[in-house]
Amino acid sequence: MIIDIHGHYTTAPKALEAWRNRQIEGIRNPAQMPRVSELRISDDELSESIESNQLRFMRERGIDLTIFSPRASFMAHHIGDFQVSSAWAAICNELCYRVSRLFPDHFIPAAMLPQSPGVDPATCIPEFVKCVEEYGNVAINLNPDPSGGHWNSPPLSDRHWYPIYEKMVEYDIPAMIHVSTSCNPCFHTTGAHYLNADTTAFMQCLTSDLFKDFPRLRFIVPHGGGAVPYHWGRFRGLAQELKKPLLKDHLLDNVFFDTCVYHQPGIDLLTRVIPARNILFASEMIGAVRGIDPETGHHYDDTKRYIEAAHIDLDQRHQIYETNARRVYPRLDSALKAKGR
Amino acid sequence: MIIDIHGHYTTAPKALEAWRNRQIEGIRNPAQMPRVSELRISDDELSESIESNQLRFMRERGIDLTIFSPRASFMAHHIGDFQVSSAWAAICNELCYRVSRLFPDHFIPAAMLPQSPGVDPATCIPEFVKCVEEYGNVAINLNPDPSGGHWNSPPLSDRHWYPIYEKMVEYDIPAMIHVSTSCNPCFHTTGAHYLNADTTAFMQCLTSDLFKDFPRLRFIVPHGGGAVPYHWGRFRGLAQELKKPLLKDHLLDNVFFDTCVYHQPGIDLLTRVIPARNILFASEMIGAVRGIDPETGHHYDDTKRYIEAAHIDLDQRHQIYETNARRVYPRLDSALKAKGR
Repeated sequence: MIIDIHGHYTTAPKALEAWRNRQIEGIRNPAQMPRVSELRISDDELSESIESNQLRFMRERGIDLTIFSPRASFMAHHIGDFQVSSAWAAICNELCYRVSRLFPDHFIPAAMLPQSPGVDPATCIPEFVKCVEEYGNVAINLNPDPSGGHWNSPPLSDRHWYPIYEKMVEYDIPAMIHVSTSCNPCFHTTGAHYLNADTTAFMQCLTSDLFKDFPRLRFIVPHGGGAVPYHWGRFRGLAQELKKPLLKDHLLDNVFFDTCVYHQPGIDLLTRVIPARNILFASEMIGAVRGIDPETGHHYDDTKRYIEAAHIDLDQRHQIYETNARRVYPRLDSALKAKGR
Repeated sequence: MIIDIHGHYTTAPKALEAWRNRQIEGIRNPAQMPRVSELRISDDELSESIESNQLRFMRERGIDLTIFSPRASFMAHHIGDFQVSSAWAAICNELCYRVSRLFPDHFIPAAMLPQSPGVDPATCIPEFVKCVEEYGNVAINLNPDPSGGHWNSPPLSDRHWYPIYEKMVEYDIPAMIHVSTSCNPCFHTTGAHYLNADTTAFMQCLTSDLFKDFPRLRFIVPHGGGAVPYHWGRFRGLAQELKKPLLKDHLLDNVFFDTCVYHQPGIDLLTRVIPARNILFASEMIGAVRGIDPETGHHYDDTKRYIEAAHIDLDQRHQIYETNARRVYPRLDSALKAKGR
């Protein structure tokens, strides 16, 4: 079984974006603020948007199941206040939930949180609880920089974030550390901000003792871990300077990397440097890089091809495709087992 | 001949740091502001600090010459105003110049600029001119984020930076794009901010047409290019989405990567993905990662070992060690040729 742990609903019907644009307009002009009930998207529209996009590629590529969350760049936690984020997160999470009900064999949801800059993360708990208890979400996406590129929240090791972590541990649910759109003109969203956030989050974990406080906390660092595996020697050396344990003991029970690296040499490095048990298959399809690589004739984001060609054995490949996901996302495993999978 | 294009004066006598601390104190209390003439470091002290550190390692490792610039993390352009940065840059550049005179066969200087947040980069030109014309500097270090992790300057593609570029082109001098200390608690300086800046700068070049305006402008992206080579497929794909030319045509006449990647798999990826003509040997020694790798028994930053072991041919190795540096830093080449080297 092949599980893609990193898919976003990037292909939602246009009505969603139209509603969001009205909501953003409503921030300046409250009389224009749309009600949630004004957004109407039928099951047929949802099905069509998935069948012709993500599910088509999953079938072509042989991916069985995707952990599916709202479009990352559209989370845009920097827009408006908590109320704005709250309404928006509720809508986006409900759509992913509906997709998971329409295609229960192929999609299982992960939640975005209604984060807002400067607002206590504890305010996200009710949405988190609803998504787990009512919608069957198996993970959350946690944005370490709700400002969208101004990086004015405390590091992930700060107690600021502990209410979220306590709930994650209670539910035994992991978080993918995933920023959203950059509104800082220095940072291109998918070419700089995403990768920077991955590297930043990893280093925040490295310099802290967060996982002593939360031994069961689990983070997925997406996009192949940003710059981390490529600079693994640097990070091992920095941990050594900081008198931290070896990275495998300090972080690798709690930190995992996905395979959203869009060429063979990158995946070869990832699988050479990072233990297979810390690598989870993912493609972030349909996402930032949608084209066909002229050097291979295949989609850049067809990461299964790179895993197939990597110098790893069958057991390692099985860990990356399935076993690790079941271990890191226990509620996914339970949901699959309940269906005899 | 082996040229290390990325060395900083991280081992300067303690008097330098003491003067800087007094200067920082003087920002709040102008009566305490030290005069430049109060800093006294003898040639013997300079020699000792180099002989027992950088030069010792260069001899042990077989590195002939280092392009030597002020300590990157100490540039700290966010501290004080332009006057503070100006006095500090002048002191630091003079020390590197003196080192280059004391060890003319082994060190050639590159300048830091007296950048200051929100100040027109054109104010850096007098120091730049002095360093080239009087001190024989062959390059500059350009900080794309003088705020130290708040990223509130325009991207490198903005006309804001053009006065620097015009002077670089006039002198036919490259810039290493190198941030300094992070004063943003989200970003560890050497584990996140440096690597993020490398990735960010590359992406700023990718999304722009900067090198159409300045076909002769040359940037070195240090630390192996941050996350860029590891995600080369992602960047190729993003360029394609943005309707830019192939990266080799769009950027690789102007952008170069150093080899400050502190383990063999990273260097193997770099040399596999990036053409040899765009890779310049460097170790950033003595720098962020000073320890001995328990997996190899050698210093993490002994990057020559990784280049020696990489799967490249003799010609490619020669390009990385010497030819590329002579081409990218023409004033280095001229200085060497003037000595018959």
